[in-house]
Amino acid sequence: MKKPFPFSAIVGQEQMKQAMVLTAIDPGIGGVLVFGARGTGKSTAVRALAALLPLIKAVEGCPVNSARPEDCPEWAHVSSTTMIERPTPVVDLPLGVTEDRVVGALDIQRALTRGEKAFEPGLLARANRGYLYIDEVNLLEDHIVDLLLDVAQSGENVVEREGLSIRHAARFVLVGSGNPEEGELRPQLLDRFGLSVEVRSPRDVETRVEVITRRDAYDADHDAFMEKWGAEDMQLRGRILGARAALPQLKTPNTVLHDCAALCIALGSDGLRGELTLLRAARAQAAFEGAEAVGRSHLRSVATMALSHRLRRDPLDEAGSVSRVERCVAEVLP
Amino acid sequence: MKKPFPFSAIVGQEQMKQAMVLTAIDPGIGGVLVFGARGTGKSTAVRALAALLPLIKAVEGCPVNSARPEDCPEWAHVSSTTMIERPTPVVDLPLGVTEDRVVGALDIQRALTRGEKAFEPGLLARANRGYLYIDEVNLLEDHIVDLLLDVAQSGENVVEREGLSIRHAARFVLVGSGNPEEGELRPQLLDRFGLSVEVRSPRDVETRVEVITRRDAYDADHDAFMEKWGAEDMQLRGRILGARAALPQLKTPNTVLHDCAALCIALGSDGLRGELTLLRAARAQAAFEGAEAVGRSHLRSVATMALSHRLRRDPLDEAGSVSRVERCVAEVLP
Amino acid sequence: MKKPFPFSAIVGQEQMKQAMVLTAIDPGIGGVLVFGARGTGKSTAVRALAALLPLIKAVEGCPVNSARPEDCPEWAHVSSTTMIERPTPVVDLPLGVTEDRVVGALDIQRALTRGEKAFEPGLLARANRGYLYIDEVNLLEDHIVDLLLDVAQSGENVVEREGLSIRHAARFVLVGSGNPEEGELRPQLLDRFGLSVEVRSPRDVETRVEVITRRDAYDADHDAFMEKWGAEDMQLRGRILGARAALPQLKTPNTVLHDCAALCIALGSDGLRGELTLLRAARAQAAFEGAEAVGRSHLRSVATMALSHRLRRDPLDEAGSVSRVERCVAEVLP
Amino acid sequence: MKKPFPFSAIVGQEQMKQAMVLTAIDPGIGGVLVFGARGTGKSTAVRALAALLPLIKAVEGCPVNSARPEDCPEWAHVSSTTMIERPTPVVDLPLGVTEDRVVGALDIQRALTRGEKAFEPGLLARANRGYLYIDEVNLLEDHIVDLLLDVAQSGENVVEREGLSIRHAARFVLVGSGNPEEGELRPQLLDRFGLSVEVRSPRDVETRVEVITRRDAYDADHDAFMEKWGAEDMQLRGRILGARAALPQLKTPNTVLHDCAALCIALGSDGLRGELTLLRAARAQAAFEGAEAVGRSHLRSVATMALSHRLRRDPLDEAGSVSRVERCVAEVLP
Amino acid sequence: MKKPFPFSAIVGQEQMKQAMVLTAIDPGIGGVLVFGARGTGKSTAVRALAALLPLIKAVEGCPVNSARPEDCPEWAHVSSTTMIERPTPVVDLPLGVTEDRVVGALDIQRALTRGEKAFEPGLLARANRGYLYIDEVNLLEDHIVDLLLDVAQSGENVVEREGLSIRHAARFVLVGSGNPEEGELRPQLLDRFGLSVEVRSPRDVETRVEVITRRDAYDADHDAFMEKWGAEDMQLRGRILGARAALPQLKTPNTVLHDCAALCIALGSDGLRGELTLLRAARAQAAFEGAEAVGRSHLRSVATMALSHRLRRDPLDEAGSVSRVERCVAEVLP
Amino acid sequence: MKKPFPFSAIVGQEQMKQAMVLTAIDPGIGGVLVFGARGTGKSTAVRALAALLPLIKAVEGCPVNSARPEDCPEWAHVSSTTMIERPTPVVDLPLGVTEDRVVGALDIQRALTRGEKAFEPGLLARANRGYLYIDEVNLLEDHIVDLLLDVAQSGENVVEREGLSIRHAARFVLVGSGNPEEGELRPQLLDRFGLSVEVRSPRDVETRVEVITRRDAYDADHDAFMEKWGAEDMQLRGRILGARAALPQLKTPNTVLHDCAALCIALGSDGLRGELTLLRAARAQAAFEGAEAVGRSHLRSVATMALSHRLRRDPLDEAGSVSRVERCVAEVLP
Repeated sequence: MKKPFPFSAIVGQEQMKQAMVLTAIDPGIGGVLVFGARGTGKSTAVRALAALLPLIKAVEGCPVNSARPEDCPEWAHVSSTTMIERPTPVVDLPLGVTEDRVVGALDIQRALTRGEKAFEPGLLARANRGYLYIDEVNLLEDHIVDLLLDVAQSGENVVEREGLSIRHAARFVLVGSGNPEEGELRPQLLDRFGLSVEVRSPRDVETRVEVITRRDAYDADHDAFMEKWGAEDMQLRGRILGARAALPQLKTPNTVLHDCAALCIALGSDGLRGELTLLRAARAQAAFEGAEAVGRSHLRSVATMALSHRLRRDPLDEAGSVSRVERCVAEVLP
Repeated sequence: MKKPFPFSAIVGQEQMKQAMVLTAIDPGIGGVLVFGARGTGKSTAVRALAALLPLIKAVEGCPVNSARPEDCPEWAHVSSTTMIERPTPVVDLPLGVTEDRVVGALDIQRALTRGEKAFEPGLLARANRGYLYIDEVNLLEDHIVDLLLDVAQSGENVVEREGLSIRHAARFVLVGSGNPEEGELRPQLLDRFGLSVEVRSPRDVETRVEVITRRDAYDADHDAFMEKWGAEDMQLRGRILGARAALPQLKTPNTVLHDCAALCIALGSDGLRGELTLLRAARAQAAFEGAEAVGRSHLRSVATMALSHRLRRDPLDEAGSVSRVERCVAEVLP
Repeated sequence: MKKPFPFSAIVGQEQMKQAMVLTAIDPGIGGVLVFGARGTGKSTAVRALAALLPLIKAVEGCPVNSARPEDCPEWAHVSSTTMIERPTPVVDLPLGVTEDRVVGALDIQRALTRGEKAFEPGLLARANRGYLYIDEVNLLEDHIVDLLLDVAQSGENVVEREGLSIRHAARFVLVGSGNPEEGELRPQLLDRFGLSVEVRSPRDVETRVEVITRRDAYDADHDAFMEKWGAEDMQLRGRILGARAALPQLKTPNTVLHDCAALCIALGSDGLRGELTLLRAARAQAAFEGAEAVGRSHLRSVATMALSHRLRRDPLDEAGSVSRVERCVAEVLP
Repeated sequence: MKKPFPFSAIVGQEQMKQAMVLTAIDPGIGGVLVFGARGTGKSTAVRALAALLPLIKAVEGCPVNSARPEDCPEWAHVSSTTMIERPTPVVDLPLGVTEDRVVGALDIQRALTRGEKAFEPGLLARANRGYLYIDEVNLLEDHIVDLLLDVAQSGENVVEREGLSIRHAARFVLVGSGNPEEGELRPQLLDRFGLSVEVRSPRDVETRVEVITRRDAYDADHDAFMEKWGAEDMQLRGRILGARAALPQLKTPNTVLHDCAALCIALGSDGLRGELTLLRAARAQAAFEGAEAVGRSHLRSVATMALSHRLRRDPLDEAGSVSRVERCVAEVLP
Repeated sequence: MKKPFPFSAIVGQEQMKQAMVLTAIDPGIGGVLVFGARGTGKSTAVRALAALLPLIKAVEGCPVNSARPEDCPEWAHVSSTTMIERPTPVVDLPLGVTEDRVVGALDIQRALTRGEKAFEPGLLARANRGYLYIDEVNLLEDHIVDLLLDVAQSGENVVEREGLSIRHAARFVLVGSGNPEEGELRPQLLDRFGLSVEVRSPRDVETRVEVITRRDAYDADHDAFMEKWGAEDMQLRGRILGARAALPQLKTPNTVLHDCAALCIALGSDGLRGELTLLRAARAQAAFEGAEAVGRSHLRSVATMALSHRLRRDPLDEAGSVSRVERCVAEVLP
Repeated sequence: MKKPFPFSAIVGQEQMKQAMVLTAIDPGIGGVLVFGARGTGKSTAVRALAALLPLIKAVEGCPVNSARPEDCPEWAHVSSTTMIERPTPVVDLPLGVTEDRVVGALDIQRALTRGEKAFEPGLLARANRGYLYIDEVNLLEDHIVDLLLDVAQSGENVVEREGLSIRHAARFVLVGSGNPEEGELRPQLLDRFGLSVEVRSPRDVETRVEVITRRDAYDADHDAFMEKWGAEDMQLRGRILGARAALPQLKTPNTVLHDCAALCIALGSDGLRGELTLLRAARAQAAFEGAEAVGRSHLRSVATMALSHRLRRDPLDEAGSVSRVERCVAEVLP
């Protein structure tokens, strides 16, 4: 199997890369929703993200990758206390996945052969402490999207089915790709993604040739290509780990809280998820930049991705939601 | 696992908090329906309520938390007579819950391994003597909502399925959250909730900053925050227990009954559920305030939450149902 | 468990109480359909009816409460010939009941453990010689309503499913409650109920206060309340038993048959169920009043409840069906 | 169980009774479809027919009531050659009957306990050589009606399901009742019933009183009533048996064949089922009347019931189909 | 059981009989679709065809009637090499047939009792080397029609279901009857039938009397009737066998190929199925007539049945498709 | 069984043949979608392709035809290391195929008899390193098409169902045939096919006669026909093998990359799949022609098939998408 295309070798698409880096620094920001037509490299980017992410320490044999033996769920009967290093899990929801594989279900084999009612963990267990990727959120059934967002937010998977009553930790970042041409997502779903970005195919010949050339090099001389870009990827991973470490010490001036609230009121967003996400994303950005305190520049840098998918349609304002956020930022945070 | 956000630390939302306290004093008031857009803290409030509620005494091993061994259902074969103290149950209906897990069902494992037809209790059994919370009533299938309201009202879960014929106590307060943007509830369902309240995001910067600041403190320094607010929560619990004890002795002057009837006739509500709920809620409010008899002030304090969801649409009156109740209260109970 | 609210303590609703008493005297009248909005005490009344009904003698262990050992169905293998006294069965159709529990079905447990194809009787067996109550007929699936009416009329439950070919007596009075706001019943279904009545919330303050006061007394001092009203209930039971005994000797003058036919022709009702029901209900009323022969006054007393749900809509006559029956009675039976 | 109401005691409804008698003389005429609103005595008539029909001789234990041991289906493993007398089978399709009970199905019990794939015959087997009654054809699912008509016509039940490949004789007369108010039958279905008749409630007081009086006598003094009318029923049975015996010798003049064809061409009926049925019904009528040859008078007597349900709608002719047939008969067969 | 009505005794309907004879000479022509209202004798004709067809030689016990032991499918484990003579199979698709019985399926009995995954062949296996008859193609579910046409064309039944992966020969002629009043067939389905013909009830009295008379004779004196017409049937069988033998030697002048192509281009038919079928049908016709080479007269004789169901609707040409083919034939093949 | 019709003997249809040859040289080009009405020889062509393709070397017993023992999936427990030669797999999706047979599923037999949860590979496993053919993509359920395209693109089949969590290589070329008259494919699906071509019935008599003549020869004298054309097929196979070997050394001048990008921008295609496919197809064409470097002539030769199905509808441009690509090629690559 070939290694995935390197994250650093992706041409352009800066906002998408920034959003992914921010959730790597603070998973509490919530998921990322990537809008764009087919063929704009969305799934390539997610698979690239996998290689970029730092290793985690987890209890050997724990189905939810717990960091401490006492956190392993009781039903898993994990007896080992050995810690192992493993890549950050990146779980890919295959098309046509069934609900029982997502949340877990009764272990049929044990039920049939031993008459025991045991739980067989699903993809949500496997995704704990990592990423869960859904290609084409629009194509997934609504009730599964609802369920994923619910778990992503609560950090816990509660299973009440087939006579089972199970719960386990399921903290992960949800990354979804959506094609605006295949139908809109309900506003309620949009609001539950932390960040959103748009990707587009480049429109100039030079950039397109660059994309094809790199793709060609990746296919033609795989090892050389990986070596060249792997170094850049490692450097980025270093910055992410640094930012993670710095985040708890980062200062949050009261004026920044006011800025958040003022911006969201000006944009007319209901609920408080907008400003909470804006604040967390700005902090992660500040930590990434090595700042000691979060400031207006960080808010400006992330406002669009934190807020544009939370706007109500304004029938009197024909500007797109991205422009409306930019205009508002210019006025409220000059 | 972090403890839930303290009930007392919730900024504003006074009506919602009052409604929840009243049902804690007299569960016979019936459920509470909380209307509001996503992100207005509805589920935070319900989880907060859990920590506030007093402990209950229950028979060890009884699937419905019975207060006396003789009340344990026969099918459960409970032999213990030991009493244990446990938190008031707060059962959360997970998304995609199936009817068999709600009402209980045939225990498949025992059927398969021992050929016995045994009953496996569901969430309704677990919720007995406590709370049952449904996030987004609108998203639940209609027949499950019907079933929950039916059981909530009769206090008994009757199961006739898969060859089982079982009944057990299921007395709980139903708390539902609804998003008016995701479709209306049928009038028949509305009428069966005891109280209803609306929550909105605050619209001024100071309050919003206060919300974010407390949330931030809760996340950043969890233990200190819990200690600070836990004391306030315990004080509130004390008042609730006091009100519960005082309720049976509380006097109900005949004039208050007349007031209830007059108000409901003036509002044109069908059925008698309106005045019965109004009366019970006013009594609970009086007990909470330490009054010796229920009076007009208590009726006024709870009229909106007891009646506004029971009004028929009046095509000639454009005022919302809350305003119509307030106007009518001002006229009938001056 | 609290005893049900006493039948005699129900405030007003005279027609509904009369209809229920008549079916207790002659179950052959057919079922009762009670129309009214939610909260008008329909289910309270049915549960009250249960306590009012006289005890029956039945073979011990017989699944259909047979009055003689030779009437027990063969498939039940009842060997006892002991007779026991038991309350008139009142079976309540829970929401979401499945067809297999209504009509009975293959006994899965015996099929699985012993490889036997045995019949497990359903609610229709349990209801034999008693009452079957459906709250909100409108909410039940059409094919189950059809089935219930079919069995109610033939007095026999015929089961042809899952390789079973079973029949057993199922003579019961069907009591249904319907909410006209939740959709109409098909005329064909209406015609198969014996009687229909409408209930409404009282519109004057005094009556409403009386309702609340009694309800309050029932909740607050249960035993005293039951004692007070129990005596009245027993007296009513005595009159019912007397009327049952008198019914076979009651005379039916030929003029009364002519009156029945003339009234139904004047109302333009198709079919002959109208006059047959009218006649039986008038006889039961006469027996209840202690008369020796049925007469015009008895016809008048029951005409509305026996006929108003059998009228075709008359687009040229805006009066409700109840008024049309009353007008016609006044003309034909002056 | 009470005996069914006697066929001869039915007041009026002459056409319906005639049609039923004709199919008793020659089952090859095909089924009868009885149109009429609920309450017009359709099911009473069918149950009455059962008592009227002559006994048949059948092989003991044969699931399809074969008249000769060699006609018993092989899968039934009938070894007895004893002949028994039994009533003509009248099978009643209960509401909600499932396809497997109609056509027969895999015998689950034997499959589970002995691992054998045996056939368990259904209602079609039981109806062989008798009657199959469907109350409210309109309420039965279309595919079951199709199936019943198919088998009724071919006289054979072919089962290809669940790994079974079975066929057995299933010659019966289909009697269906239909309520024109509950939706029309497809023309293709109508055409496959042999005869059709309409029943209506009588419109004069005397007849209605007569109906009620007889019904009353039947309920009040069952044995006396049955004795009185049983004799008339036996006399009718005698005439039917006589007509059956005479039928093969009955002559069919060529002019009658011409009359049949001319009448059908004049009515514009497609297909040849119309004239074949007309001819058979006229012959049965002739035999019933004791004639030696079929003649015009017999054609006239049965033309309406044999043809009126086979007419196409004529948008330019507002007369009902019955009148159109009568008019045409008057012209073509003066 | 009575023998089917003789093919030769069918009155008129010459085109239908010709089409059936042609497919008996060359099954490669593809199926026949017979259009006509109910009651026009379509199913009688197909059952008559069965008796007409010559016997085939087949391996004893082979589920697909193979002509050589080595052609028996492996999964059938046929060890016999004895050849038996048997009637050409004519398989009748009963109404409500399920897909598993059509294509074959897992043998449940062996799976349950022996834990083996064996294939149980379906009707397609039984129809190999014979005829498959569908009464009322319109009533069959679309996916089953698609499947039948697919197999009819490829001559092979491929089963990929329930863990089975099986294929076996399934070469048969599909005969379908369709009622144009019960909805149209999709053009794609029409194109896959080889020939199509229309049948109508005769419109003159004499012919109709002849039909009834023969039917009557068949019913009344079965053996005499069969003897009389059986001889004619045998003669026809002889001609069919002769034509089969002559077919390979029949010459096809190049001008005939040009005629086929020219006619199809003139009619504007897409695809090449039209001319291939036209050519094969004309050859079979030539062989039947004893000609040494196929010629224009044979093309003319079969053009309507080979092409009329393949025409696109022409909104500017109101003539029916049959007339359009006839007109075109007159012009192109004068 | 007859051998399939030889690829070289197909009359005309040059574009379809070219597209199929190109994917045989470089399977990475992606699938081919063939548009055309029924009867235009699409399925004949695909079956012909099978015989043309070179043999592959595969591990004996490996369910996915792996080229090296270490590539066999673990769950298959392949122990052999023997290599065998076998035809390139061409897997045909039968109508009504179920998802479990496509992706593979739990092996029921082993689950039932041995209580083991083993994987039974499906058609995707069998198609690895070969071709997968879908006749009438339009008739397949959307979710199966989605799934096939997903796997075709990723080269891996990921199964998460029934408690199984399996993945295996599934690299194949998808060939689909579509009938534009049976409904359009969604643009998102179209974009995922590598190439598309249209086929039409020839419109001149000579060509049509040639088609019929060859078909006739193939049927009449199979062996002679196969010998005649088999040699041509072998020659073509040789050229394909040569082109495969030459492909890695083929040069790609930078100007060609610019041409690809310029052409796609001019056509306004989103995403980059257009130019990547264009480039790969042009290279395969160059290799097939024996060129040392890919050039403009190769781009021109494949532009239509690589790009015409990726165009958005242009409401102002009535030309078909094929003409638009041709016009654009003429301008951009003069």
